[in-house]
Amino acid sequence: MTDLLLKSLDKQSSHPMQKQIYDIVRFAVLDHTLISGQKLPSSRALASDLKISRITISLAYDRLIAENYLITRAGNGTYVAPTLKQPLGAAPQSIHTQHSMQLSGRGSQLSFLPGGMGHTTGAFVPGVADSQAFPFHIWKRLIARHLSKGNLALSGYANHGGLSQLREAIAGYLKISRSVNCEPAQIIITSGTHQSVDLCARLLADVGDTAIVENPCHWAFPTVFAASGLEVAGGNVNDYGLDLENSYVPPRTKIVVVTPSHHYPTGVVMPLSRRLELLQSARAHNLWVIEDDYDSEFRYDGAPLPSLQGLDNDGRVIYIGTFSKAMFAGVRMGFLVVPSHLSKAFSRASTKLFRPGALHLQAALADFIYEGHFSQHIRKMRGEYSSRQDLLRFSLEKSLGDIVRLSSARAGLHVFAQFSADVNYQSVINESKREGIFLGTPCFVKNIPALENRCFVLGFGGVPLEKIETGVQSLTTAVSRSIDGERSSSSDPSDLGR
Amino acid sequence: MTDLLLKSLDKQSSHPMQKQIYDIVRFAVLDHTLISGQKLPSSRALASDLKISRITISLAYDRLIAENYLITRAGNGTYVAPTLKQPLGAAPQSIHTQHSMQLSGRGSQLSFLPGGMGHTTGAFVPGVADSQAFPFHIWKRLIARHLSKGNLALSGYANHGGLSQLREAIAGYLKISRSVNCEPAQIIITSGTHQSVDLCARLLADVGDTAIVENPCHWAFPTVFAASGLEVAGGNVNDYGLDLENSYVPPRTKIVVVTPSHHYPTGVVMPLSRRLELLQSARAHNLWVIEDDYDSEFRYDGAPLPSLQGLDNDGRVIYIGTFSKAMFAGVRMGFLVVPSHLSKAFSRASTKLFRPGALHLQAALADFIYEGHFSQHIRKMRGEYSSRQDLLRFSLEKSLGDIVRLSSARAGLHVFAQFSADVNYQSVINESKREGIFLGTPCFVKNIPALENRCFVLGFGGVPLEKIETGVQSLTTAVSRSIDGERSSSSDPSDLGR
Repeated sequence: MTDLLLKSLDKQSSHPMQKQIYDIVRFAVLDHTLISGQKLPSSRALASDLKISRITISLAYDRLIAENYLITRAGNGTYVAPTLKQPLGAAPQSIHTQHSMQLSGRGSQLSFLPGGMGHTTGAFVPGVADSQAFPFHIWKRLIARHLSKGNLALSGYANHGGLSQLREAIAGYLKISRSVNCEPAQIIITSGTHQSVDLCARLLADVGDTAIVENPCHWAFPTVFAASGLEVAGGNVNDYGLDLENSYVPPRTKIVVVTPSHHYPTGVVMPLSRRLELLQSARAHNLWVIEDDYDSEFRYDGAPLPSLQGLDNDGRVIYIGTFSKAMFAGVRMGFLVVPSHLSKAFSRASTKLFRPGALHLQAALADFIYEGHFSQHIRKMRGEYSSRQDLLRFSLEKSLGDIVRLSSARAGLHVFAQFSADVNYQSVINESKREGIFLGTPCFVKNIPALENRCFVLGFGGVPLEKIETGVQSLTTAVSRSIDGERSSSSDPSDLGR
Repeated sequence: MTDLLLKSLDKQSSHPMQKQIYDIVRFAVLDHTLISGQKLPSSRALASDLKISRITISLAYDRLIAENYLITRAGNGTYVAPTLKQPLGAAPQSIHTQHSMQLSGRGSQLSFLPGGMGHTTGAFVPGVADSQAFPFHIWKRLIARHLSKGNLALSGYANHGGLSQLREAIAGYLKISRSVNCEPAQIIITSGTHQSVDLCARLLADVGDTAIVENPCHWAFPTVFAASGLEVAGGNVNDYGLDLENSYVPPRTKIVVVTPSHHYPTGVVMPLSRRLELLQSARAHNLWVIEDDYDSEFRYDGAPLPSLQGLDNDGRVIYIGTFSKAMFAGVRMGFLVVPSHLSKAFSRASTKLFRPGALHLQAALADFIYEGHFSQHIRKMRGEYSSRQDLLRFSLEKSLGDIVRLSSARAGLHVFAQFSADVNYQSVINESKREGIFLGTPCFVKNIPALENRCFVLGFGGVPLEKIETGVQSLTTAVSRSIDGERSSSSDPSDLGR
């Protein structure tokens, strides 16, 4: 023991001696270098041998005794405690090759499910708003207002689906701007669309049930559904949006998800007739309808169509909204509007599953809406995004018009671009990356004849107006290089043709 | 049509006429009062009949046309658009009696699973910290520092398990204070323990697998596990904590959860020998071990035992921590420390499942730790909570000592109290509520012989020192009244005895 310490102690180290002694003895007990029952030198003897203060030894001994590594026998010194008969054992040679401890099946599956882009800024990352333009000075002030001892209830957990002021503010906003038919009790505050979808998956479907998503769709739906044990099927999308009536509805289908105001990502707007048809078809199949109204704040050619939820007489539509697009991505607040007969079940489930809090943020957001900052910011951004979309469309048409077809809806924070068949998809992605351009790729549901190797989602929410043209130039360079590469590889004598 | 409007328009209403006309016509189209193909009066004629401005009518018509309720034929007027062959249908008589649209099986089950207390403040609500004492003025300043345009990356989504500064700060803290063996890459930031447990459930176990929890335990574990399709079994807890070796381990058990530093709720501290035994037993059964170290910051008689994770050589321990106790409940930040071979899988899964953000808060928390505010606050609260626990124990012993036995560990934010057999559990709860006292009740796992009708969890985190004695007085009153009630009901001649 004295030898061990003499060998191992480092008096030059910045680690206190007391901690060093503690660590050395502790590991020696654990790996049975010091054997259970072995007597230790007295603190006096050890202090003299090690030439350090006796109090240091005593303190280290005290901690080791308190933690059961050592025991004392009254008047008879300090001993190694009886712990295990064998040492705990060395670590396996390599944990990576240790196949007995593995992820679950669903855990492994998760790594194959679609996910978001690693990049969160730059041309043309989809799904992000312009946080540069967000009035952080106001937001900061509103948060500070509620982060004080004045209202301690705000520092606790959030029950009942969220802060009542915020639920009232959202209900008021949705009634007017989206013709959503709701009372504040139907609003459930979540940490964003992912949590909203998770709640729907668990409350509305069981393991093995099916959810129909639009094909293509936002990756959040197939991923979160699959992670909750649902099968995911793709519904047909045509020029009027999701065509449920002509889509295969597997047995045990419980949920259909739709983005009627602005289909993600193709940009199709679902007309009234299709909306009514969809509701009838959902009724016929007895499905819950999840309406994801992710970017309806941003329509540049008039008001958006009223929500599908407002047409629902059955209490079957669940409306999902988010503040990520109208404010900034990281704000992490969203909400569900659930039929009134489900509001208690949803608010209780949210409390039990997520134990939500962050009521200071909810209070700040309620003020942000009530004091008009929210609508003012949306108005401002609507003009800004409209100009960006115009310029992006114009630049794309000018530079790539002969090989690209753009979505038509003047809405949202992205443009959907379909390239002609002779463009190599992966090569465009790679060449764009070399130019510093990131292209969103649509998420298609498997087993459906896909256009996925020709379509891109070009986000402009995070791209200032003055950077749009240079972004398109870089993209054009990348596309040309990709086409040239194709040609030169086609002319390679070893090439066996298409 | 003119009649319909004459009948329905309300000129005294605060709703603009344009919106009223829009609503009336829209609903008339939807319920086929106006039939597809029917011609509408011209705006000029209608304006004259209704005695309102023609521009109002035109604007309402324009919106109805834009939204596909009406169509125009060039030079030939306005018509009801072809929508559905039948009307969409009236709402069912009562949505509540409509049994075809129901919650999923697991959604219904959720309402029977244990949950938290509705109250979040007062004597003796468990699980809450004293937010009154929290330095919100510092916290506010740190948040404001990062809520600006200086660092826009903070307004985006959080990838890679969270902000690197925060992961480094936590890793540093855990290494020193909890002997946790970790690198920053092993830290995954979550929105609290519920999300941490959810991630473990999905990544480490499949539907139908079993998780063993301590019996009793915190309600979050059985509830979140069951909601993710796991079976939940209770492991035996004795005076040394969880006794896995002598607990039934069902086939397909994948996870065991343990609170070794301070068992929730009984307060038992697991000694070293039991910890080593537990790790050996977990190895024998090939289980993942989740160590929930929820309140280790608060030990009032010396340093807490080092973490179980620090003893693990196999990479089988997942350590869960939270800032809810050391800061305040609503802060909603927690973390996992996962074995290094799982860190990529966990960080990717967190990104895909939760789409986290709120990086401003993470940056503020990193500063809070680095600048010493965190450890200063813990030191201060340690003294404060220690006094409260002393006083609570003293008062309980004095007033109820003959019928109550208290847990022994001087730690955490609660005291576990076991009443003698002749106290009626439900009656104590009810009488306490009448006195304004809320008692935490331990969560026992079903099918295990339970002491649940005699034990309470008394939280003092949210009770200022000066309110503890009056709280205990009120509790004593409630208990006496409950015992008197028992006696008088026992002396009731119709009483058939026990």
